[in-house]
Amino acid sequence: MASPSTTTRVSRRKHRGVPIPATRYDQRLAKILSYATEVFCDKGYEGASMRDLSRASGMSLAGLYYYFESKERLLYLIQKHTFTTIVARLKARLEGVDNGEERIRIFILNHLEYFLANQAAMKVLSHEDEVLKNGFGSEVAALKREYYRICVGLLDHLKRQRSLQFTTRLAVLSLFGMMNWIYTWHNPRVDADAASIAREMGDVFLRGVICGAKARKS
Amino acid sequence: MASPSTTTRVSRRKHRGVPIPATRYDQRLAKILSYATEVFCDKGYEGASMRDLSRASGMSLAGLYYYFESKERLLYLIQKHTFTTIVARLKARLEGVDNGEERIRIFILNHLEYFLANQAAMKVLSHEDEVLKNGFGSEVAALKREYYRICVGLLDHLKRQRSLQFTTRLAVLSLFGMMNWIYTWHNPRVDADAASIAREMGDVFLRGVICGAKARKS
Repeated sequence: MASPSTTTRVSRRKHRGVPIPATRYDQRLAKILSYATEVFCDKGYEGASMRDLSRASGMSLAGLYYYFESKERLLYLIQKHTFTTIVARLKARLEGVDNGEERIRIFILNHLEYFLANQAAMKVLSHEDEVLKNGFGSEVAALKREYYRICVGLLDHLKRQRSLQFTTRLAVLSLFGMMNWIYTWHNPRVDADAASIAREMGDVFLRGVICGAKARKS
Repeated sequence: MASPSTTTRVSRRKHRGVPIPATRYDQRLAKILSYATEVFCDKGYEGASMRDLSRASGMSLAGLYYYFESKERLLYLIQKHTFTTIVARLKARLEGVDNGEERIRIFILNHLEYFLANQAAMKVLSHEDEVLKNGFGSEVAALKREYYRICVGLLDHLKRQRSLQFTTRLAVLSLFGMMNWIYTWHNPRVDADAASIAREMGDVFLRGVICGAKARKS
């Protein structure tokens, strides 16, 4: 079985943003997930075969089945890896910050930073949202729900701090839309980096929910 | 060849929002496009075969090739139909309206109304954005560019009317993100209808670009 670390078929750039894991096994896992993300991104989950994944990663078909069992498990691992990483980073960054507006800005920056460094992952997550079923599906759904609820919590916190009125669900999903759509248009040669975009999207979104929103009768 | 009008495999509900065309040929075309949209939506473009399209539409495989030549041409016709319809409706609605804010609200309502009535089309358009190549690809790209530019024009008009400052490209793409992401979450049993969502998204977006945005020195 060819070691994935020796292949050059997918450029190194694609591995940016994936934290370097501790063990050799974890390192190999992270690389295979990165290759698999690229293949799912290019061909779609339905269109990609284990043979395509083997070709891209330089890992034998037998090795791929031995380590990952199925294409479905690979998609599950990609989604799990993404959400656990992004939530862990977010929690660390929110630590000790109380200002409601500032906490939402941190959420936006954390999200955009991760996904601009991992655009293929964002596309795969968006496109293959409903593919996983049963155990895999419900585990990933729980991770996504946790992430969504963190954002709901941040918005509700701001609402209380500033006595605002808006539909939290619509505001949260509008924010995710603004941020996630970026995988369809961001061009690093034309567009600003994650920090600038986060600042400007944060301005639009926060003014949008704060300015002129009727204050509750207190 | 079975007539698509006699099949019941795809429910009638899916044809909502597709205008009723004048001739029998056009009627058949619109129905086949609607079936094809459903199949591309479920299986992805790469994963769908002409055989799947034949099964869903009740049209023979030979008939499908005879009328549409290829899967690619079907995707092209779906995209073309969507953008020409949405742009035509928008232009009719904007006629005679001069207020910049009102024009943007019309844009949002028109977009959401169409896509909430045609969620499968929105998913196919989002997911199969880069599939079409050469002639088909550049024709659809031109239609999309026209639609994008209308939105840029509306934002620039508002900017002038109200002496605002913001990055038009980022504002337009944030707005498209808010609106388009809806295909991933809108649940008619829980969420409001297009008119209410358009109003609330319009509030958030317009306050976002208007409130507190530095006025130009005049």
